[in-house]
Amino acid sequence: MSQNIEHKRHTLAHLLAAAVLEKYPKAKLTLGPAVDNGFYYDIDFSNGESPGDNDLKGLQKDMKKLMNKWNEFTHEEVAPDKAREMFKGNEFKLELIDEIEQKGEKINLYTCGGFTDLCRGGHVENPKEEIATDAFKLDKIAGAYWRGNEKNPMLTRIYGLAFDTREELADYEKQREEARARDHKKLGAELDLYVIDEKVGKGLPLWTPKGTAIKQTLENFTLNLERKYGYEHVSTPYLGSEKLYQTSGHLDHYSSSMYSPIDMDGEKYYLRPMACPHHIRMFQRKSWSYKDLPVRYAEIADYNRFEKSGELMGMIRVRKFELTDGHIFVAPDGLKEEFKNVCRMIAEGMEGLGLSEIVSYRFSKRDPANTEKYFPDDDLWNNAEAIMKEALDEIGFSYIEAEDEAAFYGPKLDVQAKNVNGKEDTLFTAQMDFLLPEKFEMEYVDADGKKKRPVMIHRSTIGSLERVFAFLIEHYGGNFPLWLAPTQLAIIPVAEAHNEYAEEVAEVLRKQNLRIELDSSNESMGKKIRNAKKMKLPYFIVIGDKEVEGKTVTLESRDTDSSENIGIKALIDKLVAEIER
Amino acid sequence: MSQNIEHKRHTLAHLLAAAVLEKYPKAKLTLGPAVDNGFYYDIDFSNGESPGDNDLKGLQKDMKKLMNKWNEFTHEEVAPDKAREMFKGNEFKLELIDEIEQKGEKINLYTCGGFTDLCRGGHVENPKEEIATDAFKLDKIAGAYWRGNEKNPMLTRIYGLAFDTREELADYEKQREEARARDHKKLGAELDLYVIDEKVGKGLPLWTPKGTAIKQTLENFTLNLERKYGYEHVSTPYLGSEKLYQTSGHLDHYSSSMYSPIDMDGEKYYLRPMACPHHIRMFQRKSWSYKDLPVRYAEIADYNRFEKSGELMGMIRVRKFELTDGHIFVAPDGLKEEFKNVCRMIAEGMEGLGLSEIVSYRFSKRDPANTEKYFPDDDLWNNAEAIMKEALDEIGFSYIEAEDEAAFYGPKLDVQAKNVNGKEDTLFTAQMDFLLPEKFEMEYVDADGKKKRPVMIHRSTIGSLERVFAFLIEHYGGNFPLWLAPTQLAIIPVAEAHNEYAEEVAEVLRKQNLRIELDSSNESMGKKIRNAKKMKLPYFIVIGDKEVEGKTVTLESRDTDSSENIGIKALIDKLVAEIER
Repeated sequence: MSQNIEHKRHTLAHLLAAAVLEKYPKAKLTLGPAVDNGFYYDIDFSNGESPGDNDLKGLQKDMKKLMNKWNEFTHEEVAPDKAREMFKGNEFKLELIDEIEQKGEKINLYTCGGFTDLCRGGHVENPKEEIATDAFKLDKIAGAYWRGNEKNPMLTRIYGLAFDTREELADYEKQREEARARDHKKLGAELDLYVIDEKVGKGLPLWTPKGTAIKQTLENFTLNLERKYGYEHVSTPYLGSEKLYQTSGHLDHYSSSMYSPIDMDGEKYYLRPMACPHHIRMFQRKSWSYKDLPVRYAEIADYNRFEKSGELMGMIRVRKFELTDGHIFVAPDGLKEEFKNVCRMIAEGMEGLGLSEIVSYRFSKRDPANTEKYFPDDDLWNNAEAIMKEALDEIGFSYIEAEDEAAFYGPKLDVQAKNVNGKEDTLFTAQMDFLLPEKFEMEYVDADGKKKRPVMIHRSTIGSLERVFAFLIEHYGGNFPLWLAPTQLAIIPVAEAHNEYAEEVAEVLRKQNLRIELDSSNESMGKKIRNAKKMKLPYFIVIGDKEVEGKTVTLESRDTDSSENIGIKALIDKLVAEIER
Repeated sequence: MSQNIEHKRHTLAHLLAAAVLEKYPKAKLTLGPAVDNGFYYDIDFSNGESPGDNDLKGLQKDMKKLMNKWNEFTHEEVAPDKAREMFKGNEFKLELIDEIEQKGEKINLYTCGGFTDLCRGGHVENPKEEIATDAFKLDKIAGAYWRGNEKNPMLTRIYGLAFDTREELADYEKQREEARARDHKKLGAELDLYVIDEKVGKGLPLWTPKGTAIKQTLENFTLNLERKYGYEHVSTPYLGSEKLYQTSGHLDHYSSSMYSPIDMDGEKYYLRPMACPHHIRMFQRKSWSYKDLPVRYAEIADYNRFEKSGELMGMIRVRKFELTDGHIFVAPDGLKEEFKNVCRMIAEGMEGLGLSEIVSYRFSKRDPANTEKYFPDDDLWNNAEAIMKEALDEIGFSYIEAEDEAAFYGPKLDVQAKNVNGKEDTLFTAQMDFLLPEKFEMEYVDADGKKKRPVMIHRSTIGSLERVFAFLIEHYGGNFPLWLAPTQLAIIPVAEAHNEYAEEVAEVLRKQNLRIELDSSNESMGKKIRNAKKMKLPYFIVIGDKEVEGKTVTLESRDTDSSENIGIKALIDKLVAEIER
């Protein structure tokens, strides 16, 4: 946020407060900052009437009216007691005054249009001139605890949106509306893709039949891609002994993200937060020659990470997830080639999911000055970062470099994705690791007959199934491409007489492993078609007299207005070709 | 064991003791019973020399020699003090004498061939006449704690095998040898199918790449079979809240098989021992009409059951397993048809895995007299058992009935499999359940507009992947049929010159999703072929000058001696046809 827009937003918080006090004289003001998309003010209405959503328009009008007189801010520094006198009866402001005094700071009052507030400053000089009255808008009302603490009184928070121009405000609202329509939690419920049931547990989503169809499709997509890139699949348990995580160092450095241990016959076991130790022990089940390397293990692995109840969010932040995980054990001189291989696979995966346009890559390096955050070995770091950079450059990856963003044990490539709000999230990473092979004393026999230590690459193929699922829902707005769609096609018989042929067609399509729904309910054809559209099915076919007679179907598409009368064989060919694309 | 063979075996335990005392006069005898395949005697050798495996032949000879004089048992009842005098210095026998006295029982001595032992009786009258000296054999030596308690002294247990005839002994040994060769723990290691790593955890197997190939094949087999039978797949977490398992009753009735709870932000969560509550909550995410039933949910579900360290065994008894699980919610009047559907699917699954010949079915009913063990509702039980019986009879299932073997909440069908030792194990079950729908207050709207309670069927498709995997390894002795084999074919180039063409062939076969291994190592062709045979690969192809020139391969089979020169296309057709069969 540029300083100017921040000042405008902060000024508008004052203006809102002034308008509120005129209409609700018993209200007590507390705090009102600028935020990312506007401003808010937290107000205590417990002594009198309080506004509802319907009152926002009126307040907004009042603000605009008041604005006419808001043409100058004046500033005054006052003694604490004078401030206390002014805000007598407002325990919130009194608390703030006490705190400012205790810190030995100055107490500042700002006045505009006859309205005075306790404030640190940061306003526009002449609101009337500088702020466009059609570029802000009161947005919504919500509850908020005083200072965010649930032990404190509940206040009323009034939110406003504010931008420099009317167009920016409109753009923002439009984008927000679109994002809301695409929200994976909203679509997840509407399209019946997953459900979070408090009785089963918080942060533990259940994938419904439709969601599971997508999950299985993503799993197969991942497994096939990994096979193509030379991975061997393994399957390891989501539990690990205390010893295992002592050796790996997770219990020392990562325990705040781990759950409390489980006792098994006197031994402690942990829900695993990561599967690297399991894959390392898999590698160590036998001895290896340099000729066998790289060894690439992949697994759709169960991970468990502690998240506070309040921080859980849909499929994005969960307590248990399945990572399309993998670990590569490679001789140091094969590291660069192998890292290229990893990058190529990731790019192919993102392309295949249709996410290329929202994905970007970040090469995260250490900050050599930050000696606490990184494994201390300058040569190793310089070498690893040089190798990663060369690998990225040689395959022509476009990426940004980020200093001080590496993992403790090595540099990494972050796969970043923009969500529907335009914000960037890390979808998953690929990391070089010289440390765990050391801790587990891993080795292979080199060409010279000597035992050497392999390097390890931690990498994901498409991230966690939960997170990529959420991104896909939002990216496609629920309009999944045919290959991903949980139901690919609805069969709609016009009347009961057409059910028999419809069932025949259904049987043929099911045998082709197409995911279809036969709607032989008693609803009208129009209702059935509206249902199919509401559930965002890529295709539906209508079957009436003409179709029964000609042994054809009439195919209609979600994405085009065309309608086509074709034979079953042609239909299958068309669908299969589209799925394979 | 018939009484006669038990008497023979017990008599041989005496004979062994007599032979031991002659050769090791400082030995102290303790207890020597008959067992399933012969007998053993636990002996304390701590005061002098002790026998090793090499001494068993000598002891056996001595037994046969002594046998000549063993033609009559005499019996004497003695007073405790006289017995104590006789066994002076043998603290083990003295402990037994004290116990017999405390119980107020008689102290019996049995003598034969001049050897007297404290004993309850149960011998043959004339050992020399009745026992064939070529029908028994000393087998092995092992350690055993006195009375099985690890706080007691360690004794030496000498095992003998004993049967009525030499042929029976030979048969037993042959069968045992075969069973040992097929043991899934042994083959699991030799064929590198799975590994149990103590550092990862006890009872938590890691599926290696080869094992995972089989696992994935079994998963796909299961999913396809379930799709065919109208199941919808779901995916639910392996954790459940305390509330969930309170409602289901697992915490009240099943907690001894559950692990200690995990704290998540002040709430208790359990590793789930069963997934039924999850599927019930999935069902309850929306409302249902009678027209929607039956609803069939299937999932390869993670289960966690407490097992003591000492009771863990390979892939058969583990602490975490994946059950090919499923739950059906059906209206009461659809129960019989649905149960038939379940049985048909199970039979098709067992047939598909090639296990039909070792599988049998047990219809497990309640014992009406055992009121503690079963949910008390006579009408409900009679009705449920009648429905299950009718279902089984109508589809012509052959089964045995077992009283007092039902589950608490309903009758069940047990799928029994014979292991390589000829013993029967329960592979998995299908159960009717009227209780959980009640506890969770499940409902659907019936044709009359009233809310009704569905019945639930718990069922597995092929059991747990771990257990069926162990059974398959043992049943096939590692010689998996082509579709299941982790590596289906090895490509063996005769010399380096043939590697390039071999790689081309490999590429073509991989694209067909065939699981192949290209052995381009520097080993001799003979060694490579021996390796492929040792790993029990169904096929290998040899590639030399002739094959490179003619663009063919020479195919050899594990199961026949034939060798065939064929083109690549013909090879693929042959393999694909065999896999589809």
